Amino acid sequence: MHLTQALHRALQQDERRPLTIFGDRVRSVAESTDRIARLAAGLRSLGVERGDRVALLGTNSDRFHESLLAVAWADAVVVPINHRSTPSDIGFALADCGARVLIVDDVLVTATRGWAAPLVVMTDGTAPAGTLSYEQLINAQEPMPDSGRGGEDLFGIFYTGGTTGRSKGVMLSHSNVLASAWGSLATGQFVTPGGRLLHAAPMFHLADLATWVAALLTGGTHVIVPGFSPDGVLAAVERHRVTDVLLVPTMIQLLVDFADVHRFDVSSLARLIYGGSPMPDGLLARAQKMFPRTGFVQAYGMTELAPVATLLLPDDHDRPELAGSAGRAAPHAQVRITGRDGAEVPRGTDGEIVVRGDHVMPGYWQRPEETAAVLRDGWMHTGDVGHMDKHGFVFVVDRLTDMIITGGENVYSAEVENVLVQHPAVTACAVIGLPDARWGERIHAVVVSGDPEVSGDHLQDFCRSRLAEYKVPRTVEFVGALPVSAAGKVLKRRLRDERLPE
Amino acid sequence: MHLTQALHRALQQDERRPLTIFGDRVRSVAESTDRIARLAAGLRSLGVERGDRVALLGTNSDRFHESLLAVAWADAVVVPINHRSTPSDIGFALADCGARVLIVDDVLVTATRGWAAPLVVMTDGTAPAGTLSYEQLINAQEPMPDSGRGGEDLFGIFYTGGTTGRSKGVMLSHSNVLASAWGSLATGQFVTPGGRLLHAAPMFHLADLATWVAALLTGGTHVIVPGFSPDGVLAAVERHRVTDVLLVPTMIQLLVDFADVHRFDVSSLARLIYGGSPMPDGLLARAQKMFPRTGFVQAYGMTELAPVATLLLPDDHDRPELAGSAGRAAPHAQVRITGRDGAEVPRGTDGEIVVRGDHVMPGYWQRPEETAAVLRDGWMHTGDVGHMDKHGFVFVVDRLTDMIITGGENVYSAEVENVLVQHPAVTACAVIGLPDARWGERIHAVVVSGDPEVSGDHLQDFCRSRLAEYKVPRTVEFVGALPVSAAGKVLKRRLRDERLPE
Repeated sequence: MHLTQALHRALQQDERRPLTIFGDRVRSVAESTDRIARLAAGLRSLGVERGDRVALLGTNSDRFHESLLAVAWADAVVVPINHRSTPSDIGFALADCGARVLIVDDVLVTATRGWAAPLVVMTDGTAPAGTLSYEQLINAQEPMPDSGRGGEDLFGIFYTGGTTGRSKGVMLSHSNVLASAWGSLATGQFVTPGGRLLHAAPMFHLADLATWVAALLTGGTHVIVPGFSPDGVLAAVERHRVTDVLLVPTMIQLLVDFADVHRFDVSSLARLIYGGSPMPDGLLARAQKMFPRTGFVQAYGMTELAPVATLLLPDDHDRPELAGSAGRAAPHAQVRITGRDGAEVPRGTDGEIVVRGDHVMPGYWQRPEETAAVLRDGWMHTGDVGHMDKHGFVFVVDRLTDMIITGGENVYSAEVENVLVQHPAVTACAVIGLPDARWGERIHAVVVSGDPEVSGDHLQDFCRSRLAEYKVPRTVEFVGALPVSAAGKVLKRRLRDERLPE
Repeated sequence: MHLTQALHRALQQDERRPLTIFGDRVRSVAESTDRIARLAAGLRSLGVERGDRVALLGTNSDRFHESLLAVAWADAVVVPINHRSTPSDIGFALADCGARVLIVDDVLVTATRGWAAPLVVMTDGTAPAGTLSYEQLINAQEPMPDSGRGGEDLFGIFYTGGTTGRSKGVMLSHSNVLASAWGSLATGQFVTPGGRLLHAAPMFHLADLATWVAALLTGGTHVIVPGFSPDGVLAAVERHRVTDVLLVPTMIQLLVDFADVHRFDVSSLARLIYGGSPMPDGLLARAQKMFPRTGFVQAYGMTELAPVATLLLPDDHDRPELAGSAGRAAPHAQVRITGRDGAEVPRGTDGEIVVRGDHVMPGYWQRPEETAAVLRDGWMHTGDVGHMDKHGFVFVVDRLTDMIITGGENVYSAEVENVLVQHPAVTACAVIGLPDARWGERIHAVVVSGDPEVSGDHLQDFCRSRLAEYKVPRTVEFVGALPVSAAGKVLKRRLRDERLPE
């Protein structure tokens, strides 16, 4: 099957139905699909051929939605890039995937300075000199027939934080993202068929994309806001009678802290799906009180799993013994907890969470060694540590790899450490994630300094000049020495445990 | 993905949950899976190897359910055979698929006389001499590990009526049956996740199998009755609080005609799925009145489509303009109406219904020519004639091929005609289906006879000795000549139209 098949079905069944709503701009199925078929032809006219990569850099919009589908329609591979990355990271991803064309928001054009391939600029105004206008490209073309790209063909490459300071491209086929969507939908408690899905979380991220695919398959309308803000989300829910939304815990925190929340009518919201980082218990309780008629669904997974592995369904939320659980294997996924020897451990025992199924990525783009390190016998080794209760509920307790999830973004501590140690005053450092009410985790740097004059602020500024803002440590602590193991490895878990609140 | 994956998920999540209920016999997930793994080992001990065919001939039972899964667990291909077929048809299917082993109900053993391969007999008593006992086979083995057969591997071969007098084996892969189930479940209005599904229609048939797969994937309990009877179904619904059932229109007719229907509590029934043959309007209205709290879902498809192509959902049943519609393309299916040139015809125009998707069979077993005749560019040519309204609703109006659906069984008129013309008195004949309140269609033979002494009863007896009972014409009519086209072809549609009630 191919993702664009959903457009043909929508055309056949109700071409006048709104497919996207972005601010005051409503595009019907017919109009949206016509634009997608023209944009695909435009990409072809720029030299895009079967299997070529087309990068996509933008905030949420109806054009972002069109681009995701137009690249597939044109038989190419979409590479949605985190627009909060630094120009250096963006440049790395563009070069690594060998992007043939880059579709970019007008406000983000400067981040792509120096990029040689054609730049297609999404704008309501005029495209800058030396670039192509997205709208003109669409207008200049006749619609092309759908290539029918699907099945094991790659749908996209998604860059995630890299443990060695550079990110890796997760390859996902059409079958991968479809498998996750079918299995999630089969519970009857994922995205509402024929409903109105709000895109408030970033659409380049697999969490939101999971709901996007599900809504496409079941004939939903995509209500899109450029980015998250409490009043923007609440106003969109009220105005468009939104039925479903995916939010990361950081966004939920901002929502429940928002003073004017009770001014909005959110009674239409049937489902609030959350994931992307651990959800504090207290926050969940507050959110459930705020949306009493809404079913809460937790989705646990990762980009490499396209992305859903387990689901905690609304009824599960009523059981106190399941507080802190990430739910059970979704119908499409096999989930196990394994020990160091690779064998399954007894229920209740911590081990690595491993996952198998049609949704597991074929690998990292041009990274056979890193692929082999995580994919063994078809099992994706998530790097997350957890246990499973006797009814299959998974509890994620820690991460094997040094990844910090802050505000829904993955940050590998190694990348931040690699920057810190470049500062002449830093003799050693360890970067850890600490629980944070707003961010889920905040990045905390523990530093051994050779220069008492150097302040935390100074090191933060140093990082800021070399890292995306969300990767900069929010707190810096100076110590005399780091705890190390007999083998000389920094004992990060001990560092973290000592700094946890009582 | 493989179908038996659903068992592993069930074991992980709730091994003590009832998986099958058959009369007073309840088997938990753990017990059922243990028996399946032992039965698979037993099949292996009989010489079954990867890809071998294992035939299955039985009425509905928990053992039938186990066998379907055990064959896959053992890495083999199941061939469920219609137990209402004649010994000759059964023998044909067994030989055609090259069955290595036959699993058979005790009451059906005589139908397999002369079959050389091992016979495994499902019985509560003693297996006849020269056969193996199903229970002893299970008890003698240790459970074997799941082979993990899945994806494009064949799940089963399903014999359907043949236009040339012999039936064809429809090959269906694990992916095929899964695609149909995922797409149907994605509507949120197919089988209830975690519900109790009643198997009253024959489990060897794809209609019931479609619901069986969906319930397996979503953690349901299978309530199984040996065969359909109005009081048996109603008592099972009441006793086990059944949530979902698939019935063919003939069964629904018997239900609504049953005098004691109101003695039973059927309030648990959330969904009544029907299909397999056209549903008369008046019958649907009576059934909806009888089950006021139940959502009605029509599934249209065929064995070759594993089996669902379109669905008419509960809300669609409230719209008078959709009376007689078979519904719209399910999320996994592409459905078109095409003319003789293969191009799509305008909405409202009759043409052949063609279907494409991951659910379409790879072909007929060892029948490349017959496969090529119906599978073109991935499109399955159903042989059904219909049109599509502007919202994608399909209305099936006739069949291109001469197939009669009587009591949910497919009968090709050619097969019956081939028998009739063997009678010395018959000089020409045409077999057609006429609307029938009870059977959906009844088989009607129009005969040109050279011997005025020969009666309709006599010809029926002649057919009965050579055909399964359900293929015997229920009515026989003698005429002086058959209407033929300029090319000498019998004008069956005219014959039929002239005999339709006003």
